[in-house]
Amino acid sequence: MKESWSAFDTFEPHFRPLVVIELAKDTKEETKEWLTQRIVEKKKNGGAQLLVKPLIKEDGERTDGNQHLYLVGASHLRLLLGAETVGLVKECNDNSMRTFTYSSRKTFKDFAENNHDFLTMAERQYIIKHELENLRAKDEKMIPGYPQAKLYPGKSIMRRLLTSGILVQIFPLHDAEELKKLRYTWYGQVKISYQPLDEIRCYFGETIALYFGFLEYFTFALVPMALIGIPYYVFAWEDYDKYVMFASFNLLWSTVILEVWKRCCAIMTYRWGTLLMKRQFEEPRPGFHGVLGINPVTGREEPVYSSIKRQIRIYLVSLPFVCLCLYFSLYVMMIYFELETWALDYHEENESNFSNLMLFVPSIIYAVVIEMMNRIYRYAAEFLTSWENHRLESSHQNHLILKVLVFNFLNCFASLFYIAFVLFDMKLLRQSLATLLITSQILNQFVEALLPYWLQKRHHKKKMYSVKADTDLSLFEQVNLEKEMGTYLGTFDDYLELFLQFGYVSLFSCVYPLAAVFAVLNNITELYSDALKMCRVFKRPFSEPTANIGVWQLAFETMSVISVVTNCALIGLSPQVNALFPESKTDLILIVVLVEHILLALKFVMAFLIPDKPRNIQIKLAKLEFESLEALKQQQMKLATESLKEETHGEKKMN
Amino acid sequence: MKESWSAFDTFEPHFRPLVVIELAKDTKEETKEWLTQRIVEKKKNGGAQLLVKPLIKEDGERTDGNQHLYLVGASHLRLLLGAETVGLVKECNDNSMRTFTYSSRKTFKDFAENNHDFLTMAERQYIIKHELENLRAKDEKMIPGYPQAKLYPGKSIMRRLLTSGILVQIFPLHDAEELKKLRYTWYGQVKISYQPLDEIRCYFGETIALYFGFLEYFTFALVPMALIGIPYYVFAWEDYDKYVMFASFNLLWSTVILEVWKRCCAIMTYRWGTLLMKRQFEEPRPGFHGVLGINPVTGREEPVYSSIKRQIRIYLVSLPFVCLCLYFSLYVMMIYFELETWALDYHEENESNFSNLMLFVPSIIYAVVIEMMNRIYRYAAEFLTSWENHRLESSHQNHLILKVLVFNFLNCFASLFYIAFVLFDMKLLRQSLATLLITSQILNQFVEALLPYWLQKRHHKKKMYSVKADTDLSLFEQVNLEKEMGTYLGTFDDYLELFLQFGYVSLFSCVYPLAAVFAVLNNITELYSDALKMCRVFKRPFSEPTANIGVWQLAFETMSVISVVTNCALIGLSPQVNALFPESKTDLILIVVLVEHILLALKFVMAFLIPDKPRNIQIKLAKLEFESLEALKQQQMKLATESLKEETHGEKKMN
Repeated sequence: MKESWSAFDTFEPHFRPLVVIELAKDTKEETKEWLTQRIVEKKKNGGAQLLVKPLIKEDGERTDGNQHLYLVGASHLRLLLGAETVGLVKECNDNSMRTFTYSSRKTFKDFAENNHDFLTMAERQYIIKHELENLRAKDEKMIPGYPQAKLYPGKSIMRRLLTSGILVQIFPLHDAEELKKLRYTWYGQVKISYQPLDEIRCYFGETIALYFGFLEYFTFALVPMALIGIPYYVFAWEDYDKYVMFASFNLLWSTVILEVWKRCCAIMTYRWGTLLMKRQFEEPRPGFHGVLGINPVTGREEPVYSSIKRQIRIYLVSLPFVCLCLYFSLYVMMIYFELETWALDYHEENESNFSNLMLFVPSIIYAVVIEMMNRIYRYAAEFLTSWENHRLESSHQNHLILKVLVFNFLNCFASLFYIAFVLFDMKLLRQSLATLLITSQILNQFVEALLPYWLQKRHHKKKMYSVKADTDLSLFEQVNLEKEMGTYLGTFDDYLELFLQFGYVSLFSCVYPLAAVFAVLNNITELYSDALKMCRVFKRPFSEPTANIGVWQLAFETMSVISVVTNCALIGLSPQVNALFPESKTDLILIVVLVEHILLALKFVMAFLIPDKPRNIQIKLAKLEFESLEALKQQQMKLATESLKEETHGEKKMN
Repeated sequence: MKESWSAFDTFEPHFRPLVVIELAKDTKEETKEWLTQRIVEKKKNGGAQLLVKPLIKEDGERTDGNQHLYLVGASHLRLLLGAETVGLVKECNDNSMRTFTYSSRKTFKDFAENNHDFLTMAERQYIIKHELENLRAKDEKMIPGYPQAKLYPGKSIMRRLLTSGILVQIFPLHDAEELKKLRYTWYGQVKISYQPLDEIRCYFGETIALYFGFLEYFTFALVPMALIGIPYYVFAWEDYDKYVMFASFNLLWSTVILEVWKRCCAIMTYRWGTLLMKRQFEEPRPGFHGVLGINPVTGREEPVYSSIKRQIRIYLVSLPFVCLCLYFSLYVMMIYFELETWALDYHEENESNFSNLMLFVPSIIYAVVIEMMNRIYRYAAEFLTSWENHRLESSHQNHLILKVLVFNFLNCFASLFYIAFVLFDMKLLRQSLATLLITSQILNQFVEALLPYWLQKRHHKKKMYSVKADTDLSLFEQVNLEKEMGTYLGTFDDYLELFLQFGYVSLFSCVYPLAAVFAVLNNITELYSDALKMCRVFKRPFSEPTANIGVWQLAFETMSVISVVTNCALIGLSPQVNALFPESKTDLILIVVLVEHILLALKFVMAFLIPDKPRNIQIKLAKLEFESLEALKQQQMKLATESLKEETHGEKKMN
């Protein structure tokens, strides 16, 4: 990576803009001054010790009074110290991965005092974001100029500015040349290749790279299912034994791929250093509040909040609320099915154009209601999870994901379950499945990436930016362009989409083997549309170090267990299998249950036997732990006042 | 603990015998000399640097030529250094638990240079055993005097001596006064109280204390089941709904107790320091062999053995062998049932005294065959596990336990499963269950503790030792008495007994609710008979640090999952429940399967939600990890040649 901000040379040689702060247009001068002062203030005085500069036009004249965009950067040294604070793990000269410390910087690979690219741009931006978010109030009682925006010691200033509406957004800047290179290797070429995961990680950070890694892995993993599924469609195989074989393969295969993914993930994140990052010692998330106290682990002062209170909030408020919502959602579904039968009856009674139209009404109403419920529920889930007041961002995310996941699962699959196990209508099930899968895939890609891209292009055309290539834009133009772009809200929706797709593929795989084929086709285009979305549609997101896909792993594993149950039940219900046991349904059910239990047991044994981390990674981790233990011993040795006296052991030998 | 070896003052003031080495009576002088030399040799010369002394009679005259008993001890300093080597964790002055190092010894609680009881006697003996076992050959090609006993660099000398028959045994000495005190608090009083677990741990070590802790916990945990089970027997309740309730309670309760046990276990082992002991950095087990290489984790020289080779041996030899044995065992059981029916037919045809006797023949043959199979299998399992060549003792034990466990499970329960699910005979099932449970419990306690105790008493009476109280025996008498005692082969059989008991209680709990009552009664007497066994029947065992009950936790959890399946099936089979669904057996089965799935799901959710370690232990562990990371950082700082220059960051402020 070479120095490549196009506007670089319009500034002092040492200031490189990394992050943009956008304040509200009517922010008082007093507040601006206070904020910039706090940002540049030395660390020991409670500041962030960063560099900040108002964004000015090329001609150098400052648009006083209306200045609301600030560029934030930091000196190379400050960034290195920040890397130590956030606990970045980098590769050493001896190829081992170690937590970066400023004083041991010389032992790291590619480190040189003048190599400003030792930290990737994503890492630098992450450090700045971390420092800004952890800029906490000292003795201020309120934000200067805004008496209603109260502050108390330890409160995150940026958080308060955001909730008071003074701060519009903070976002990292794109690097036009790097982005151009990345785009080219990612989706600019026609030749089919692996995703450039390491490059994606350097530019967008680990969370997003891991998502693309998972998407790619998952697509490859679905290929065998798709290949086996095709002949079922081509030859219209309907024999139960073939279906049983396909379903059994699917169910065991899904366990294998999820277990192997853990290993692949460990390999990747070890290389990226995030596997070793100690998440439990991370600072509390900005939204975390509580009375100032002492963290029992680190001994440092920070807000503390009783874990019992949180548990009470989770189990006595959030859990009942989620259950109620699930019940309500099921209730709505039942109304939909009643409306459907009512519409059918009406259509049969008085057959007319109007009645024909009426047939579509229930579906439309249901779709609209579901969408509304989804949005309201999402909002409520976010509110509840914030209110639960988790200390760590990861824990917050996991609780939020779990809440939204359960609800989405029900909304997506309840109707299919109803058709399969209450109406016993396999034809309708296959039809609904195919419709849902294909329409949702097409809609998703359109709404998610292509439509915003098109809208944005049109918008840019209006503003006449597109006449210049991206790399030719001035910094002023670039910032103003990027601040208008949409904000990428995290990988949640992308994973959710994959999760629901996995549901379509595995839950009813013995009814519709072709689902895997569609999933593979979708994922291949998804790779490109997601890449397009990341590079062209959204503002650059902040990098976020992660070691695994978190609660999604559990979600996918749970789905694969549920699909054992559904597939066995579906096979048991199929007319071909039923025909084999004409006189005794009991035997049939017993056999199905037996097979189900064996499959479940096999899955658990497999999950138990396949180690989560490859052996070489295990050894590397053990080695690091061993070293850190030895270091602790040595430190204790130092601390002990008395040094080891002369060797007096073996003083009295006998014989 | 005060100095209390009765024979203490007959030796030099600094030598306290801790461990006895018994060599074969005809061992050559040359070998004896070499061995004692190697034991006392300095550590840097490859010795163990311990103290060793031949056992001599009180009158001081050495029985030359026939000297084969040696006492091993160590200086206080040597023991402290040994404690550092084995990685003992002790309590510090600030109540935190830390790995002991000699140089930081002053920071530990109760440490004083002249306090020779800082280490418990069990710990001292463990250290000596560890040092003896890790006494490895240097350039010796064979054991001096025994050219056929080959040695190679790195081979454990004690191991070779043992396999060559030169070394008969190594065992730790009892401490008569301590033992007397322990016996009094343990089972000497009439009043009912908790087990003195901390005292047991000090005297016998963590593994045995943990077994007694588990036994006590498990007994308490069974009390609610027993209490609920009694009215079923008293009022002869036979309603299916009551049975369903009992079974459901049982199944969920068993998950709760197993999860809560993990927490109790963590609390105990944290206090004992074993929770923090790093097992993965332990030295390879003495039986481990391989070519000398470098351990990739520690960088130290030790035998290495390919993990792939081990995997191949496990999956391609051990696994098929175990499966074959299981199949054979099932086959034998089928023959038994055939013999049984044949005997019944014979009895019905020609009713005579002889035919009446013949009725018992199949059971007797089966019992004998089972016992033989068990012994042969146990031998084979031990051989196979040794052959798999596990590096760590814990891994070796786990593989051995798993093998024996599966076989014992099948032998114990296969006939009950056959009666329940093939013969559908609930009466017979209840009867067999009661017979098996009660007879096995009585037999076990008799064979395991009371019989050996009685035999030993008689033996002592013959040798006229019993005229003196234990504390009055001379060291010579004590050693000669103890070397004749049986060897305690580890907690395996004790856990196995509990495991099978848990099976009897939970697998068929809805058929025989009284099982829990018998289990509780048995366990109360078991506590006493096991205590008696440990204190009076067996040689003192070496202490073995452990942090949990290892593979037994998994075994018990698996059993509790299997019991959900069996109980649901039994309820589904019961005539009362069948009577409720007179026209449709299908509905019945579907409901049973549904209930089973809900119970299983609940169990997994509960296991997921209950944290394995209490919060305060989690914090303490996190704190220790945090400290060790900080220490690593500081060490890196030291290593870095350049120190931090003057603060140059923030060099260029703007605005």
